[in-house]
Amino acid sequence: MGISGKVLIAQSGGPTAVINQTLAGIVLEAKKYTQVTRVYGALRGVEGIVNENFLDLTQETSHNLEQVALTPSSALLSTRIKPDSKYCHDIFRILEAHDIRYFFYIGGNDSADTAHIVNEEAMLANYDLRVIHVPKTIDNDLMLNDHTPGFGSAARFVTQAFMGINLDVRALNGVYIGVVMGRHAGFLTASAAIARKHEADGPHLIYLPEKVFSMQQFLLNVKEVYDQHGICIIAVSEGIRDATGVPIVTMLNKSNEEDAHGNVLLSGTRSLGDLLADQIREKLNIPRVRSDTFGYLQRSFFGCVSDIDQHEAREAGERAVQMAMWNDVDGSVTIKRTGNYSVDYHLERFEDIAAQTRVMPDEFINQAGNNVTDTFKFYVRPLLGSGLPQPSWVRAPQVPRIFNNGLK
Amino acid sequence: MGISGKVLIAQSGGPTAVINQTLAGIVLEAKKYTQVTRVYGALRGVEGIVNENFLDLTQETSHNLEQVALTPSSALLSTRIKPDSKYCHDIFRILEAHDIRYFFYIGGNDSADTAHIVNEEAMLANYDLRVIHVPKTIDNDLMLNDHTPGFGSAARFVTQAFMGINLDVRALNGVYIGVVMGRHAGFLTASAAIARKHEADGPHLIYLPEKVFSMQQFLLNVKEVYDQHGICIIAVSEGIRDATGVPIVTMLNKSNEEDAHGNVLLSGTRSLGDLLADQIREKLNIPRVRSDTFGYLQRSFFGCVSDIDQHEAREAGERAVQMAMWNDVDGSVTIKRTGNYSVDYHLERFEDIAAQTRVMPDEFINQAGNNVTDTFKFYVRPLLGSGLPQPSWVRAPQVPRIFNNGLK
Repeated sequence: MGISGKVLIAQSGGPTAVINQTLAGIVLEAKKYTQVTRVYGALRGVEGIVNENFLDLTQETSHNLEQVALTPSSALLSTRIKPDSKYCHDIFRILEAHDIRYFFYIGGNDSADTAHIVNEEAMLANYDLRVIHVPKTIDNDLMLNDHTPGFGSAARFVTQAFMGINLDVRALNGVYIGVVMGRHAGFLTASAAIARKHEADGPHLIYLPEKVFSMQQFLLNVKEVYDQHGICIIAVSEGIRDATGVPIVTMLNKSNEEDAHGNVLLSGTRSLGDLLADQIREKLNIPRVRSDTFGYLQRSFFGCVSDIDQHEAREAGERAVQMAMWNDVDGSVTIKRTGNYSVDYHLERFEDIAAQTRVMPDEFINQAGNNVTDTFKFYVRPLLGSGLPQPSWVRAPQVPRIFNNGLK
Repeated sequence: MGISGKVLIAQSGGPTAVINQTLAGIVLEAKKYTQVTRVYGALRGVEGIVNENFLDLTQETSHNLEQVALTPSSALLSTRIKPDSKYCHDIFRILEAHDIRYFFYIGGNDSADTAHIVNEEAMLANYDLRVIHVPKTIDNDLMLNDHTPGFGSAARFVTQAFMGINLDVRALNGVYIGVVMGRHAGFLTASAAIARKHEADGPHLIYLPEKVFSMQQFLLNVKEVYDQHGICIIAVSEGIRDATGVPIVTMLNKSNEEDAHGNVLLSGTRSLGDLLADQIREKLNIPRVRSDTFGYLQRSFFGCVSDIDQHEAREAGERAVQMAMWNDVDGSVTIKRTGNYSVDYHLERFEDIAAQTRVMPDEFINQAGNNVTDTFKFYVRPLLGSGLPQPSWVRAPQVPRIFNNGLK
């Protein structure tokens, strides 16, 4: 069994729908161990640690924690600060002063890096400290994880959004572009593919940051789909880039004008969706073209959650405490897929998580680079959870016309 | 009992989450009457009528209709066409040719107008035709209705969106602007108010098209809230206008440049949210300002629906058929509130629905014009339905600091 002392929990980075499941998993499990004298929560991630902004979660009811677990977005608030080594040293000094012996940090790869440095400080100082990083990110871009807590619920939102959009555009025709988050990783955008039920359903085209985006090819694709179906629904990742690595949104925001020094002027900061819609209107002469940027709703909408994602986020927190208490180890909790569908939790070295970001493997993307494969759909479907809504069409037979050539 | 003949149903305008409940209500009720020889559905509203694009819904299973009822967006597809009197005359000729004796048109006030003209054509021709308009619009802007089917579910989406946004912004600080649909009526934007649980929760400010928008006052309001809470969450209607009636989005998109003829140049077509965010950044010097336009998701997202809205949309369709069959009348179905909370359905004259659009009454808006009253909240809450999610905060006590003046 581990050393006697306090537990500290902090949350970092962009919120998810299930990040508080992990929080509840850690608190409720930690309170079971006699060597745990208190369970603290730092307010606003590492900022809360260096400022000693701690809540005593030992004095929180389990009933309220269960309600908090169902609430999206970091209940302990968050921060975007990426601590340097001085900052990490300060974190360590505070932990030491408060006799904190177990530090659980819920976040993405920057958080894994912070956990790593704090862990090394403790070892140098011969201070007995267990440090566990617990993953969360809607981007699904952490190395060595089959997927990350938070991703499944955001993917479900994107899927349900495109299911509705498909029906909306079908009713009124035209082209629609939905811009989805994910930075350099296309997983979230790719999840839109699950919205397709009938052959004619959208999204018909999916553009990911993993593949070079060609405007010419894009317009050809859109024209082809529109000519075939009378509609074209497109899922685009915010991070799509051209062959030289320049984001498409940056490229399109440049006007053709140059200033006195020959620099291309930026004509504004219009959204990627609007800019692509303009291209379609101008070059393809399609009248009804609409676009949305899914924005903050896709990560924070309250009431669209995957039960699988909830369950795993909770378990990841619970397992993190068990690993620290029973196995006396440090590292980053990872999710491994062990069946269709089952998972298990491992512990990896911080540096293997912190170093890189994961992107979509080639087998998940079609040859043309404008859609996903069935392999990806098979991978992602269980993560969205149970009870996904199913669109149904009217299938009644057509009535014969009386006026064969229209009204005279 | 009414005359023997066919029933025709069509759907029009922007889709809603429950418009197919009304469709199912009409079809399933109509099939109970022996004088109904067939139940037809026109594809794409009035376009489907003049083109004789009819489906025979008599040959659709009730089980599939129940699935269709749960699917958002017009299952019979839709149209934006506003028929002139020639078009209405063509509609009438097609109805006559197909021996259609009952015409149910699901839509907003333009649809009530079309129904009216078709009804008058039939009377002039001495053709026995019952015409009933059944309301639907997320804008909630139909006269003589307490509210309209489709509004409750869209309002629920807006509420759940702002609940999540509030938690997201609370976690990371800053100012957030969410732009909501509704054209000239502020009901949908105003519904964001239900997202507030704790005193400090957003949305803190709500701007509606019913009140003149002053940029100066807006910036003062934002500064005040931000200084008090460290965050400021704002719900803005897409239709906000200045004192001269010019939409704010148009005003802000004008640059200060003039062309050779002295006309002000339009500098672009940026979104209202982005333009307001710029004003806050520039004038108030607040670093983190974000905005989203809720776009098509608020009317078509699949999986956010009010059970009250579903129930009423269904009943409105069922009652429409009963009125036509038993009472031999024409007109527009309206929803009246008869208790807290109960409703009943009346029939009003087409022209009283078609003529005007309803906007928020003064008693729903606060004196300062930047929020709603409790009267509005009491009005709107039941429409969102049961099982609305509830955000919960951690309430644990603060831990005393060890380093009173921070780390040295």
